Amino acid sequence: MFKCKLRVRYAESDQMGVVYYANFFIYFEAARSEFMRTHGFPYSEMEKNGFFVPVVEAYCKYLSPAHYDDELEIHLWVLELKNTSFKYGYKVVREGKVLAEGFTRHVVVNKDMKPVRIPEKVKRMLEKFIIK
Amino acid sequence: MFKCKLRVRYAESDQMGVVYYANFFIYFEAARSEFMRTHGFPYSEMEKNGFFVPVVEAYCKYLSPAHYDDELEIHLWVLELKNTSFKYGYKVVREGKVLAEGFTRHVVVNKDMKPVRIPEKVKRMLEKFIIK
Amino acid sequence: MFKCKLRVRYAESDQMGVVYYANFFIYFEAARSEFMRTHGFPYSEMEKNGFFVPVVEAYCKYLSPAHYDDELEIHLWVLELKNTSFKYGYKVVREGKVLAEGFTRHVVVNKDMKPVRIPEKVKRMLEKFIIK
Amino acid sequence: MFKCKLRVRYAESDQMGVVYYANFFIYFEAARSEFMRTHGFPYSEMEKNGFFVPVVEAYCKYLSPAHYDDELEIHLWVLELKNTSFKYGYKVVREGKVLAEGFTRHVVVNKDMKPVRIPEKVKRMLEKFIIK
Repeated sequence: MFKCKLRVRYAESDQMGVVYYANFFIYFEAARSEFMRTHGFPYSEMEKNGFFVPVVEAYCKYLSPAHYDDELEIHLWVLELKNTSFKYGYKVVREGKVLAEGFTRHVVVNKDMKPVRIPEKVKRMLEKFIIK
Repeated sequence: MFKCKLRVRYAESDQMGVVYYANFFIYFEAARSEFMRTHGFPYSEMEKNGFFVPVVEAYCKYLSPAHYDDELEIHLWVLELKNTSFKYGYKVVREGKVLAEGFTRHVVVNKDMKPVRIPEKVKRMLEKFIIK
Repeated sequence: MFKCKLRVRYAESDQMGVVYYANFFIYFEAARSEFMRTHGFPYSEMEKNGFFVPVVEAYCKYLSPAHYDDELEIHLWVLELKNTSFKYGYKVVREGKVLAEGFTRHVVVNKDMKPVRIPEKVKRMLEKFIIK
Repeated sequence: MFKCKLRVRYAESDQMGVVYYANFFIYFEAARSEFMRTHGFPYSEMEKNGFFVPVVEAYCKYLSPAHYDDELEIHLWVLELKNTSFKYGYKVVREGKVLAEGFTRHVVVNKDMKPVRIPEKVKRMLEKFIIK
């Protein structure tokens, strides 16, 4: 499982005094960006090489609120891996407590937004993170 | 079914040239705010009266991208209505084409974040929008 | 002077219970988008025609807070108009009360980010909104 | 001068392929949060102690674009220090190149939004970062 940390910004809080729900999806993205970069496939380079990986499905379950200045740990793993698509699982954790969990499903497409096979090297890397 | 319109802002686009996925959840929120206000229960007043309605679950399926300056129509209805919680369904539509669909589940809580019964008047209003 | 309205979203509030300061710049952008569209030059089309109009300077003075669900009126005018650049002035108003005022300076560039002359038709339109 | 680092998120890019201008103000906030935390006065605790520090003025000059996945260094210093207000200066730097510079002015207020003197300990800490 991949783990990374981030600090909640004031901008991400709302008037309920907690992190606004949509921002968890931004945390998911920060985690998958860092995951890809750490494992040799920075997403910025994938786009330069003509591979785009849009989100086709996103889900989050909110168990306990996160607050401004919290240091959060995002856990990321691969839930599903197909030829042209895959699915990440996530947990948002603060000091061992799970605040939220979710998933995103992605399709790999070319510049014309047509699905293409996941590049072989990327697929082999993702395989190592499959947890069902 | 309730419908409202909004215009995509430049801030909401990303470098893929489409609306960033997390922003659809902001559109959902804009729609439910307008829904509550239109039907006599502005959410801002609910909070002043001590009722908070956090999101406990959120989902979106992305079918086709939205773009900067698009005029989007958000459709909203009630998928489920219980004593202390309920679930909204959403569609994001551009000129008759469904771009995304999703749901959010909410719990009604008091200032101490303890679940409380949905105020009776609000429940009766929500009932009229149930579509299963 | 051009005027348009928008409704504050919950996402735009922060834990101080007011609109987070950076969001006023998003309101400015929503206003200038609507301004350009209303006067025959949707910014989305300008980009398709190869004209980009990035912000090179931005300023806002916050006089009084805006809140969730407020209906705000954004006033926009042209403060300065040169060959390749111009400056918008803004006021954010709620029920006649000025909450914030600011400006943005823009340069017109081509796809290679080189400054180019403001298209003549656009310039003539902008001239009508000059208030010094 | 205080320096901290952050990584540009995909969410922060726009369809011009660069960081959307309003997001620089979020970077400024991330920097001042980290600055206060690092020097013993986490802003989250200041609010718990009844001190709020809203922004009353904000400015940014954009010299060169930032991109998704860039690692940015935010430089922060104190430009001005008065009894109830102060002003931060900022630079956004990527590999030694200044991409943007700006400032924010803040007033210290109590829960009723009335200006109060900057707590003495905080003031003494801020004094060490004055650069004119």
